[in-house]
Amino acid sequence: MNPIEGHLPTRSPLHEILAPSGIAVVGASSDPTKRGYKAMVGLIKDGFRGAIYPVNPKADLILGIEAWPSIAAIPGTPELALICTPAASVPGLIAECGRHGIKGAVILASGFAETGAEGAELEREMMAQAEAHGVRVIGPNTSGVFNLHHRLNLLALDNVKSGDVGIISQSGNMLLSLALEAQYNGQVGFSTYVGPGNQSDIGFNDYLRYLGEDEHTRVATLYVEGFRDGRKFLEVARDVTAMKPVVVYKSGSTEAGQKAASSHTGALAGSYAMTVDLLRQAGVSVVHRSDEILPVAEGLGLLQKARGKRVAVISDGGGQATIASDRLAEAGLTLAELSEETRQKLREVLFPQASTVNPVDVAGSTDANPSLLATCMEIVAADDNVDSIFLVGMFGGYSIRFAESLLGDEMRGAEAMVDLSKATDKPLVIYSLYTPIKPPALRRLHEAGIPIYSSIEQSVRVLRALGERGDYLQLCEQYPREPALEPKPELGETFARARAEGRDLFEYEAKQLLREHGIEVPQERVVRSDAELAEAVAAFGEAPLAMKVVSKDILHKSDAGGVKLNLMGEAALRRARDEILASCRAYDDQAEIEGVLVAPMAKKGVEVIVGVIRDPIFGPVLMFGLGGIFVEILEDVAFRSIPLSRHDARSMVEQIKARKVLEGARGEPGIDMEALVELLLTVSRIADAYPELSELDLNPVILNADGYAVVDARVIVEREPIASHDEESAA
Amino acid sequence: MNPIEGHLPTRSPLHEILAPSGIAVVGASSDPTKRGYKAMVGLIKDGFRGAIYPVNPKADLILGIEAWPSIAAIPGTPELALICTPAASVPGLIAECGRHGIKGAVILASGFAETGAEGAELEREMMAQAEAHGVRVIGPNTSGVFNLHHRLNLLALDNVKSGDVGIISQSGNMLLSLALEAQYNGQVGFSTYVGPGNQSDIGFNDYLRYLGEDEHTRVATLYVEGFRDGRKFLEVARDVTAMKPVVVYKSGSTEAGQKAASSHTGALAGSYAMTVDLLRQAGVSVVHRSDEILPVAEGLGLLQKARGKRVAVISDGGGQATIASDRLAEAGLTLAELSEETRQKLREVLFPQASTVNPVDVAGSTDANPSLLATCMEIVAADDNVDSIFLVGMFGGYSIRFAESLLGDEMRGAEAMVDLSKATDKPLVIYSLYTPIKPPALRRLHEAGIPIYSSIEQSVRVLRALGERGDYLQLCEQYPREPALEPKPELGETFARARAEGRDLFEYEAKQLLREHGIEVPQERVVRSDAELAEAVAAFGEAPLAMKVVSKDILHKSDAGGVKLNLMGEAALRRARDEILASCRAYDDQAEIEGVLVAPMAKKGVEVIVGVIRDPIFGPVLMFGLGGIFVEILEDVAFRSIPLSRHDARSMVEQIKARKVLEGARGEPGIDMEALVELLLTVSRIADAYPELSELDLNPVILNADGYAVVDARVIVEREPIASHDEESAA
Repeated sequence: MNPIEGHLPTRSPLHEILAPSGIAVVGASSDPTKRGYKAMVGLIKDGFRGAIYPVNPKADLILGIEAWPSIAAIPGTPELALICTPAASVPGLIAECGRHGIKGAVILASGFAETGAEGAELEREMMAQAEAHGVRVIGPNTSGVFNLHHRLNLLALDNVKSGDVGIISQSGNMLLSLALEAQYNGQVGFSTYVGPGNQSDIGFNDYLRYLGEDEHTRVATLYVEGFRDGRKFLEVARDVTAMKPVVVYKSGSTEAGQKAASSHTGALAGSYAMTVDLLRQAGVSVVHRSDEILPVAEGLGLLQKARGKRVAVISDGGGQATIASDRLAEAGLTLAELSEETRQKLREVLFPQASTVNPVDVAGSTDANPSLLATCMEIVAADDNVDSIFLVGMFGGYSIRFAESLLGDEMRGAEAMVDLSKATDKPLVIYSLYTPIKPPALRRLHEAGIPIYSSIEQSVRVLRALGERGDYLQLCEQYPREPALEPKPELGETFARARAEGRDLFEYEAKQLLREHGIEVPQERVVRSDAELAEAVAAFGEAPLAMKVVSKDILHKSDAGGVKLNLMGEAALRRARDEILASCRAYDDQAEIEGVLVAPMAKKGVEVIVGVIRDPIFGPVLMFGLGGIFVEILEDVAFRSIPLSRHDARSMVEQIKARKVLEGARGEPGIDMEALVELLLTVSRIADAYPELSELDLNPVILNADGYAVVDARVIVEREPIASHDEESAA
Repeated sequence: MNPIEGHLPTRSPLHEILAPSGIAVVGASSDPTKRGYKAMVGLIKDGFRGAIYPVNPKADLILGIEAWPSIAAIPGTPELALICTPAASVPGLIAECGRHGIKGAVILASGFAETGAEGAELEREMMAQAEAHGVRVIGPNTSGVFNLHHRLNLLALDNVKSGDVGIISQSGNMLLSLALEAQYNGQVGFSTYVGPGNQSDIGFNDYLRYLGEDEHTRVATLYVEGFRDGRKFLEVARDVTAMKPVVVYKSGSTEAGQKAASSHTGALAGSYAMTVDLLRQAGVSVVHRSDEILPVAEGLGLLQKARGKRVAVISDGGGQATIASDRLAEAGLTLAELSEETRQKLREVLFPQASTVNPVDVAGSTDANPSLLATCMEIVAADDNVDSIFLVGMFGGYSIRFAESLLGDEMRGAEAMVDLSKATDKPLVIYSLYTPIKPPALRRLHEAGIPIYSSIEQSVRVLRALGERGDYLQLCEQYPREPALEPKPELGETFARARAEGRDLFEYEAKQLLREHGIEVPQERVVRSDAELAEAVAAFGEAPLAMKVVSKDILHKSDAGGVKLNLMGEAALRRARDEILASCRAYDDQAEIEGVLVAPMAKKGVEVIVGVIRDPIFGPVLMFGLGGIFVEILEDVAFRSIPLSRHDARSMVEQIKARKVLEGARGEPGIDMEALVELLLTVSRIADAYPELSELDLNPVILNADGYAVVDARVIVEREPIASHDEESAA
């Protein structure tokens, strides 16, 4: 049993479809301007190993291959059909495919859901046929498919290098651009490509699972305009990233981009910030620039090893060492602190004016002796404080810049670097300003699979991906997801009652839910009568109190005049209660008012918001941010898919830009970080345990050095039918 | 008189030094590993037009050229000496140069101030000789100099393309990397290069002025680790950017980078954020990634035209149109809103499924007809809402991807784009995924000087630089700097008194300074006696009052218990006064206490900070930010060099990330923006008029819809002697 099967119990049906023994090309043509011609040429030129069945009622022979008048007429049973005909013909053809035993179809035509209501109807019709006849659909509106290791090339793309990068891209131009980049400046080739198009049947999660299982793919690379089932995708990504790197570029980081994407593949936008957070939580390397996709995939794919974020820089130019230091720090990486032993060894081989503090600047020591750079790399590789090694400067060009006689020494240096890369588990990344020239020493490193870049920024981007992946793999093992909570029957009844009454939870019910699962919620009492009011005064003693209306009909309590703060003594409480009731009745004379909630005022501290939403794409998501303008104006919010691990909870606090406020700014003491992490975890577990909970909003929670106070809690109840827990876990 | 001379009255002495009729190479050598050999080779190979005088006591002939035993022995008087000998020999050689009439020297040796105290002493010694003998110094610790249009190449760098990009770089590797990039992937070449090294004599401002005046330079490009005289540099930059683009990469954006830079060229760090703000204020195009330096310089240099920020995108791929839209929005550019007329014209030439909303997606219309892309560009170029045009996709590769027969049409398209680029004042920028292949159509555009990039991100970076430069040139004309204030004699006396007493201004004096120049400062009274207290009560009536201690010795009034708020009635005021005095005496029993300041409480609003600092590198700088954690934790602060223009003041408010708080968030009304702009301008003019003002801190100023209230004002008085205004303006 291979490790992949260990993680993913069933095998993707795509293996059969993407490595077919035969293919029907429906709409095959002898006209060179037609897609049905190009596909034929691609299949023949690339030496497709299976049978090719051109389908065209008007031709006997296409490109020298016998053509068939219809799918039904094909003598064999190919697993795959490529359909090159216009949109309107597709539903009928899918049915024909199914009747002939064809398992999968690639639909090139556009004119479906991405064009509006009429197209969406046609897409539904097509899917009805596909489901009725058991045909899996790639597309529609796809740029095509290739599987180079099977010599299946339905794109008629010339000169694509075969290799181990798998690509799923909703942009055909993106594939083309990556292919050209790889061919001219890259070090990798491709295994499988699929354009998911509108994903009306097979979606990103299925494709990713396939790439995870595919033995020819060492890194999965995705250009995504929109996920269909984001939650499923995250689950698959979690499994796949444990085995191999996954690189995702998600478009729609701005409103302008979201609008453009929706007219391209009809993709649902969703929040970009949330998407990025959730993908990273699942171990995905998210890249933000399209020109970083290939370098990052290349670096992760070539190296297949990743440790932490402490980088040792070896440089032969002080200016570029400075640039590298800036970029590393900005990327959240650190300059490894070299041990005294390491520095001593460096001093022994370098000129006295060299800097042996990281970034190491050889300051001329290597001008006549470039292989010394490899020696320096060996020295820092032996240092336990170092996770990865970054060579910056002229290497490869010494024999060009200084003297041809240096070529031998430079090649010896390259050989030593190759040896080092085999001996160490620390990744080596090289920036050389001679990269565009491809001199012999760089060619040697290139052959050996050491990633080489032509820009410091690209190199650092790769180092960041390596560092993050290294950390992720370690932390994943250290921190499994927190175990699920056992839902309590009496709370289930609370939800059932609210659902029956068509309302959300009352604040005190919401707080009871939290309290029952170990979240500290300040004491409070529902006061419905003078007697209860007197009891509340007796219970809370001298402390100043807060009072809030209790009504299922009043959502915005402050607006209704339903909140009074800092009340002291029974008389004041009574007056406040009367004013609240009067004001709320004036606000909404139909509102059913149960009474008021009385609780001691919270201690001063930092206000934060903890929320749960059910995202239409990603399902239950925990949200955390500082209160007020931080969330609303600065959008300084972190998201994690529920359920969280302890590391997830901690990292979402660390991610907040204003985290220094939590650590204790301006002379204030820091807040109790562990209590906050525990709170986030428990909220995650509650949301996981009660599917009846649709949304939750703790706003604000007041944090201080001694813990926290949940000042306000809202729970929105799911109105739709809910699958029982048993059904869920069986699914 | 050329326009350059119109701006800069005197001509830089560098013209003579960098275009010498002869050059002495001190330390010239026949040993190929020596710098003194390489320089000779470079001069000879590049065909230097003047006389070459190798100086070496041990040789008669170097590389076939007669050598001289000493500088004194040289028969002619070269303007320039290249000194290749070790640091210790330099002071003596400089003196010799001066005695022989040599005007300038390039000092390659390192081992000066960048290495510590001993080196700094040697540098001072060298400068003493240089000043005594009238020799201008480039370096020391410089990588060298070239002036390709004069065939002066002291770097022995092969294959550097001659062109119109001038480069000043404190990193030799950076020059080399730009040269290689230009040679292999670029469209430009170089005019002059100087490595300023330690800038012990000639600094960045001098070099920039030279490039501004140099007729062979169309764009000045600088890699800077540190400025020596930042204020002078800003002045020169302001003049030069009015004539030609200036591109600056400033290293040290992080602490790690600042540390690395200081061990490289001994550069003073300074605040990166401030440096960027001030450079941009002077019209400089600041780039943050080192791999964006050449693309931006290239785009600005090639096009020499720049308008605003409204970009029209023409694309043949929906995915890449989406990526372009995201990047443009993130860069602060906008997708131009195409007029109905433009959209109609596009509809007439494109397929029905094409999107004629910007980004224009031709959706297959050009597959058999690539020149249609040029037609689309012509159509959008005619739209008044469009400032620049961005072509995204496969252009240049249609004949490769689809059919060779398309080559003719593709070339016609290129020709039409060349014609358009000549006819319109709107810049055209092209991203093609075929850029690495350099196909014929792209070569044609290349020859015509239309910038072509291999990444969407790089293209957008160039479009941003173009948009910002266009806006800058327009706004500069529209908004000159605000005229200086006339300082008032009585306020001059206030400063003189404070200086004589060795103290800063009292708060009421600081407020008087503001008030006298038209800044609205709430009424307040200094209370020294019970009688004055009664007068204050009478003057302010029923309003709640604030009270603060007045003492030159107590800086942190709150810490000393010297502030009380919300006081009502004479009894409360009296009690508060007594408590403040007691508390302040307990805090510092030596403190001289003048009394207390009484003022009405400020209305609620948004707290901001307005400050003036005298930066050691850049001189007087205005600072603006929101109060509290915004400044201290989020570092959300804007800086401008004083004096400001009205546009400067407005843009610094717009730059703040939390500006939405000012515009009125969470149901609050927005603040009075014009009053704020006026306040910033007046503070700038006050700081400009009173050189005795060393620092100013208005913290907080409370802004609301009706104006603002300066709640606290501190003015730090300059302790050092001050040049009089007359002297200043004469200098």
